[in-house]
Amino acid sequence: MVEMKWVYTFEEGGRDMKELLGGKGANLCEMSRLGIPVPPGFIISTEACRTFFQNGGRFPSGLEEEVIEAVKRLEKIKGSNFGDPKNPLLISVRSGARSSMPGMMDTILNLGMNPEIVEGLIERTGNERFVRDSYRRFVQMYGDVVMGLKPSSKDDVDPFEEIMEKYKERNGINSDVDLAPEDLSEITRIFHEIIKERIEEEFPNDPMEQLWGAIKAVFSSWTNERARKYRIMNNIPEEWGTAVNIQCMVFGNMGYDCATGVAFTRDPSTGEDVFFGEYLINAQGEDVVAGIRTPHQVTKERSRKMAIVNGMDERKRLEEAPSLEESMPDIFLELVDIYKKLEGHYKDMQDIEFTVERGKLWILQTRNGKRTAEAAVKIAVDMVKEGMIDERTAIMRITPEQIDRLLHPTFDPEARKELLARGLPASPGAATGVVVFNAEDAEYRANEGDKVILVRIETSPEDIGGMQSSEGILTTRGGMTSHAAVVARGMGKCCVSGCGKISVDYSNRSFSIGGRTVKEGDWISLDGTTGEVFLGKIVTIPPKISGNFSRILEWGDEFRKLDIRTNADTPNDSKVGRNFGAKGIGLCRTEHMFFEGERIKVMREMILAEDINGRRAALDKLLPMQREDFHEIFSVMSPYPVTIRLLDPPLHEFLPHDDGAQNELADILNIHVSKIKERVDSLREFNPMLGHRGCRLAITYPEITRMQARAIIEAACDVKKKGLEVRPEIMVPFIGTERELELQREIIIKVASEVMSERGIQISYTIGTMIEIPRAALVAGKIAEVSDFFSFGTNDLTQMTYGYSRDDSGTFLEEYISKGVLEQDPFKSIDIEGVGELLRIGVERGRSVCPNLKIGICGEHGGDPKSIRFFHISGLNYVSCSPFRVPVARLAAAQAAIEDVK
Amino acid sequence: MVEMKWVYTFEEGGRDMKELLGGKGANLCEMSRLGIPVPPGFIISTEACRTFFQNGGRFPSGLEEEVIEAVKRLEKIKGSNFGDPKNPLLISVRSGARSSMPGMMDTILNLGMNPEIVEGLIERTGNERFVRDSYRRFVQMYGDVVMGLKPSSKDDVDPFEEIMEKYKERNGINSDVDLAPEDLSEITRIFHEIIKERIEEEFPNDPMEQLWGAIKAVFSSWTNERARKYRIMNNIPEEWGTAVNIQCMVFGNMGYDCATGVAFTRDPSTGEDVFFGEYLINAQGEDVVAGIRTPHQVTKERSRKMAIVNGMDERKRLEEAPSLEESMPDIFLELVDIYKKLEGHYKDMQDIEFTVERGKLWILQTRNGKRTAEAAVKIAVDMVKEGMIDERTAIMRITPEQIDRLLHPTFDPEARKELLARGLPASPGAATGVVVFNAEDAEYRANEGDKVILVRIETSPEDIGGMQSSEGILTTRGGMTSHAAVVARGMGKCCVSGCGKISVDYSNRSFSIGGRTVKEGDWISLDGTTGEVFLGKIVTIPPKISGNFSRILEWGDEFRKLDIRTNADTPNDSKVGRNFGAKGIGLCRTEHMFFEGERIKVMREMILAEDINGRRAALDKLLPMQREDFHEIFSVMSPYPVTIRLLDPPLHEFLPHDDGAQNELADILNIHVSKIKERVDSLREFNPMLGHRGCRLAITYPEITRMQARAIIEAACDVKKKGLEVRPEIMVPFIGTERELELQREIIIKVASEVMSERGIQISYTIGTMIEIPRAALVAGKIAEVSDFFSFGTNDLTQMTYGYSRDDSGTFLEEYISKGVLEQDPFKSIDIEGVGELLRIGVERGRSVCPNLKIGICGEHGGDPKSIRFFHISGLNYVSCSPFRVPVARLAAAQAAIEDVK
Repeated sequence: MVEMKWVYTFEEGGRDMKELLGGKGANLCEMSRLGIPVPPGFIISTEACRTFFQNGGRFPSGLEEEVIEAVKRLEKIKGSNFGDPKNPLLISVRSGARSSMPGMMDTILNLGMNPEIVEGLIERTGNERFVRDSYRRFVQMYGDVVMGLKPSSKDDVDPFEEIMEKYKERNGINSDVDLAPEDLSEITRIFHEIIKERIEEEFPNDPMEQLWGAIKAVFSSWTNERARKYRIMNNIPEEWGTAVNIQCMVFGNMGYDCATGVAFTRDPSTGEDVFFGEYLINAQGEDVVAGIRTPHQVTKERSRKMAIVNGMDERKRLEEAPSLEESMPDIFLELVDIYKKLEGHYKDMQDIEFTVERGKLWILQTRNGKRTAEAAVKIAVDMVKEGMIDERTAIMRITPEQIDRLLHPTFDPEARKELLARGLPASPGAATGVVVFNAEDAEYRANEGDKVILVRIETSPEDIGGMQSSEGILTTRGGMTSHAAVVARGMGKCCVSGCGKISVDYSNRSFSIGGRTVKEGDWISLDGTTGEVFLGKIVTIPPKISGNFSRILEWGDEFRKLDIRTNADTPNDSKVGRNFGAKGIGLCRTEHMFFEGERIKVMREMILAEDINGRRAALDKLLPMQREDFHEIFSVMSPYPVTIRLLDPPLHEFLPHDDGAQNELADILNIHVSKIKERVDSLREFNPMLGHRGCRLAITYPEITRMQARAIIEAACDVKKKGLEVRPEIMVPFIGTERELELQREIIIKVASEVMSERGIQISYTIGTMIEIPRAALVAGKIAEVSDFFSFGTNDLTQMTYGYSRDDSGTFLEEYISKGVLEQDPFKSIDIEGVGELLRIGVERGRSVCPNLKIGICGEHGGDPKSIRFFHISGLNYVSCSPFRVPVARLAAAQAAIEDVK
Repeated sequence: MVEMKWVYTFEEGGRDMKELLGGKGANLCEMSRLGIPVPPGFIISTEACRTFFQNGGRFPSGLEEEVIEAVKRLEKIKGSNFGDPKNPLLISVRSGARSSMPGMMDTILNLGMNPEIVEGLIERTGNERFVRDSYRRFVQMYGDVVMGLKPSSKDDVDPFEEIMEKYKERNGINSDVDLAPEDLSEITRIFHEIIKERIEEEFPNDPMEQLWGAIKAVFSSWTNERARKYRIMNNIPEEWGTAVNIQCMVFGNMGYDCATGVAFTRDPSTGEDVFFGEYLINAQGEDVVAGIRTPHQVTKERSRKMAIVNGMDERKRLEEAPSLEESMPDIFLELVDIYKKLEGHYKDMQDIEFTVERGKLWILQTRNGKRTAEAAVKIAVDMVKEGMIDERTAIMRITPEQIDRLLHPTFDPEARKELLARGLPASPGAATGVVVFNAEDAEYRANEGDKVILVRIETSPEDIGGMQSSEGILTTRGGMTSHAAVVARGMGKCCVSGCGKISVDYSNRSFSIGGRTVKEGDWISLDGTTGEVFLGKIVTIPPKISGNFSRILEWGDEFRKLDIRTNADTPNDSKVGRNFGAKGIGLCRTEHMFFEGERIKVMREMILAEDINGRRAALDKLLPMQREDFHEIFSVMSPYPVTIRLLDPPLHEFLPHDDGAQNELADILNIHVSKIKERVDSLREFNPMLGHRGCRLAITYPEITRMQARAIIEAACDVKKKGLEVRPEIMVPFIGTERELELQREIIIKVASEVMSERGIQISYTIGTMIEIPRAALVAGKIAEVSDFFSFGTNDLTQMTYGYSRDDSGTFLEEYISKGVLEQDPFKSIDIEGVGELLRIGVERGRSVCPNLKIGICGEHGGDPKSIRFFHISGLNYVSCSPFRVPVARLAAAQAAIEDVK
């Protein structure tokens, strides 16, 4: 039998040994190999952890000897001794699986202390408060994560925090920093007491016992409930196990030859290629992070800039806030050397934690630095220019969410915010304005120069003008694909929907939540990216779109397989989408065209007509209007294809439902109001979503299809006559059987031939269908025989596949996500397992009949990166999304293609 | 090259030559071979038809010679000559494909006549009227089917009938029989005229030309529009072609040695094994059928019986209405001999047409005789007893519709009916009663002893009492699975639903249709089997269930693979279902239990409760009621399994929606009515079908599941204590994800364990789910991991797979069927291609994880024979249907199994 080796020094490992040493350990080894001064330490391998479990929770034989040996090595390097009160070695213990895993034990610092060592350290450092506080922290961490003293029930507070709070209250102390050394001593004593009382175990004073306790706790945390669940959800095998990382503690607060700081290899806010960092002399890391003392700049240049901003003269600056470059020039040079080495090695902007202990620089950690969206784009583009990374890598460095953030206003990150409520993040961006409760008020006040937020229980097509005038929209009903959400996304406007806890009182022009009332004219702010609603005015920062942004997207265009189109119902939307890079329209909803101005009246006249002749007369009036719409859209989008969906919603959506509007309509049409009521009543449906809509209307009233087909082809002729290329794609909605499409196809072909021969112009157009009814996906083979293209309508497909009405599911969807029934809102990101399976079936069956069938998707999922990845894998030809999601979709499609090649 | 043969004599063919000679031809040959005297004839083969089309519509070479040869053979046999005025041979020409095919040319009689031959025949027969009428008929048939003189548009009347009508009107003649020979001459002349005028062709007088015209017409009718459509719908290949059957005409009206009649080898009304028939001396077949003269009985025994019934003494009988047995004893004996031969040969009851021409018996046709449901059952059982057929064959002889007819009242077939309207045949049977418009009136008048028909726009659970008290239910909205339809079927009560042309005016207590108004108290009658609504009272005949009926079903039970269960919510339904042979309950809907009496109040209290404690208090009151329900049902159904579905409908269905009822409820619960209105409003949904219902409610309010699980297990314990076996199957509705079922399963198991340990009794129960959401079928593999059984809810599955709201689809479904978009109502018979595909996927994926998974179906399709056949093929374990459909399902399942073996 080969003797197992359980413990590894940093010199023995490297980046490629994650399996054995865990991610964190391998990284420490890597830095060590690069000659970066990391605090000395060693790693207990994942193999030891596995053996621990195989042994039924006993340490593997040989481990003890190896650990003792390794500790001795540390003592030698540091010149201090573990457990020696005069010159104690303190260590940290951390878990570290192959990939970072929340739910496991994280860190124990300052291990190796006991009352005797505390006194020795005070003597040695002359810093009593630091030592007592370090001890207090150690006891608290050890008591919690190793000894397992947890709150007694889920709602209870952490027992240690409770002791701290009570102590401060009793002694009139406001903040932790005001705790004197004697306070900390007393608190630590109480900690010891409660541990003994509750756990019925003595707190170990022997440093070696502490160490073994910590190692055992790290191993055991691999199998705790939270870690297990995380593994199941993320498909991480149980048998991996975790490594244990043990390192010497280093302290930046042992005197004026000590310091601690954080630095970024580039500016994380702008992405500029300048070294950027903050530090404090004689301080510990926490002080920098917690903002207890104001840190100073690392570089001289930035230090000077900041001084000017703060109105501080050079003399005062040098006295009170010198840069590291000035106060510790050798350390600074060493740090510059290291940051260059690290960035060059990891080929990404690094976020580095460092500590100077008695004149010696230690790097505690390096990791890819968090950055703003703007910085992310700039750094990625710069690094390509510098030859550090290739374009593929640059593309993968940007998240689609960052792209999205660049397109919408955001809140000033410094602003204070008072959260009122949380709804669904229906359309991204930030908005602030005064509350109004109806569309007319919104338009009126916006014209007066006010910024307004439109608050509605739900919106309807009649509200579109008011929505356009508002900064943002807040609704209390409806989900991610409700009217408000869809229209707002189309407009690139911030929207929070389905905020059910808010109760709107239209008559009193106010809304209330949790006993608080907000009146018309009060300021509120919405974050459409998070779904948060804030009280009051919050400063917003407008979006910035740079050349780097376009550069990244253009690089991405080279890689992606999916075409990107936009959903657009107006010439303006079409322009926006095209400017963002859409190569065509994937969904032009014709019904929105019937709500504007005079049109709704004619539409109502059509619906209320007694017979086909009455309907034809009204349709004849609508024809020129529709033709005009299409004319403009074709012109804007030439030479790209434009997919026009024929009339989809049930007719009752076009009729007025309240008495006032019904009476008005009766006057206009010169008929008795009872006739209108009767028609509204006869059109009423229990489940309009599953009712008389889409092609079902067109089968009943083929004259509607005739008018629309004529308008499309006439407009196409007009546009072609102007010398522009035009590619209309006529899309029949809500197909469930091939026969429906066949019947509609016959009508369209007949009308188109008529128009083309009237005009003497040939238009090359196609006729296809939405696949949005589950049955359509199942019989896609038959439908493909009569269809030139498929466009998956994943909104409706999700509704029917899940049986979730998007208008009603708000009542339980949130609960479903919080209870883990659903991982995500299926209207936001496609349900790959269920809805996606139908899509896969539809693609497969459609293409089995017609191998080159063009297949796209025009539901809201067309703008969702995770969904886009699935559509890429499923072999779709294009995705179509709201104009403002086009850049996101371009990036996500490129990333999907790059990942796929990997 | 082999010389083709196109023409076959009856001696050359037989039963097994349908491919070449067509079904009818092969059958004529068969009879001929048996020595049955059929009028001599010959057959032009289907091969000739095929060649005709291959030749571009020209007759194959050699055909002419063969036909002429064959006609000569006929002349020889009959001793008369084709085209000879003195002794003419007249023939009939009929089409005959491999299987009988509507849409093709049927029959031309009396071919071979012209004015000269008419005169000769008059002389020969001495029956001028007969000859002139025969000629008139010939010209009409030939003009129509060969020369193609059709109505000029679809709505127009037949031009020949128009001429007849006008002539009679002009001459004051009431009936065709009153037309004198000269009238017939004149009419025939006008026929000739109009043919010449419209077709611009002379009517052919040359018999041979007539014959070739007729042959060509038969061939051509194979490719006409109607025949083509029929072939496509029934998957009949285009290339089959049709044969042409040519036979000598025989006449029963050439004198007193002539007769004509129809006979059945058994009594078609009762199934009794007695020869039964009617005949007329010196008459033609039509006279018997048309009822112009009253025919006499064939057998002496029956003749005597009828005389007694009609109060006719023996002397008068022998003078005026002697039996064939008495008037033509030799012919009778020959006929008896033939009928025995035919029944023995075809092994089924035969319907025989015969003619005696100048003392010679001819059999014109034999076919399996139509019979009443009662006769069908008796004949099948008798024939098994007689050893004529086996049980398998007997089972296949009964149609499920016949079984159904035996279970429900029917209208007296003699009754005169005035059709008012046509709706959907929602629940079979016949009912007659006075109209009432609400449930209370129905109960009140029924208590007074009236028979009532409840007429509603739609029904709701509150109407159940009134429905129970009615003879039948008529609704103007809702489809085959609407509330009214489902409940009525469950009650075995006649129902016509979705009768959209009727407009109900509740306030005036009347309904109107097509200008006619029916008031409360007026009599109407419903045929739930056909969907017809009649004005006035029609006598109904109660159902008769015989021992033969049970015998057939029991034989069937031996063959079927599918178990049959019943859907039953009450002890009474359970009893009915069990008596009809259900071996368990496949669906016990618990929500219906919450509508009765006091319960609805407690239910409402639960829904209106402020918090979980309030809900629990109300649920505690419901618990004993539910337990009692289950107790009774378990007792009735022991030892068979009972599948109980947990609460399914959205809560708002339980709340009152009108002001009056809301105020009343507010008083009872002692709360302000605004609270009720608020709750009703907050529960309102746009698409309740896709809303907060089924297990979604149970996830939000797990206390409901707890109560129901407790009631089930407590009841099971009580029943088991009585010494009865009990097998509860707890079914969670509306599952879309495995996690939902997992959560519900945990609750149920916990409660069940509690109850069992409280009672000290072990109950073996299972927990399963409905598969009724498309997603559930798609992820059935995952769901199967946490489910003991599946039950397909094909109603909801159809709604979601098609996107058809069953409550709303009435508006377009009828149109869809009439326009051929759908072949059938998918709520009545399962859509095999779409919904069935999901079912197939669900079965396959579920069983791939759990090979012995018990799978059933409890939608309305469980009682539909076509659907049952599909469920059998799909490998389901059972179907569950309304109690009154159980016998139908038993038979259909047996037939599916028998066909499958074939």
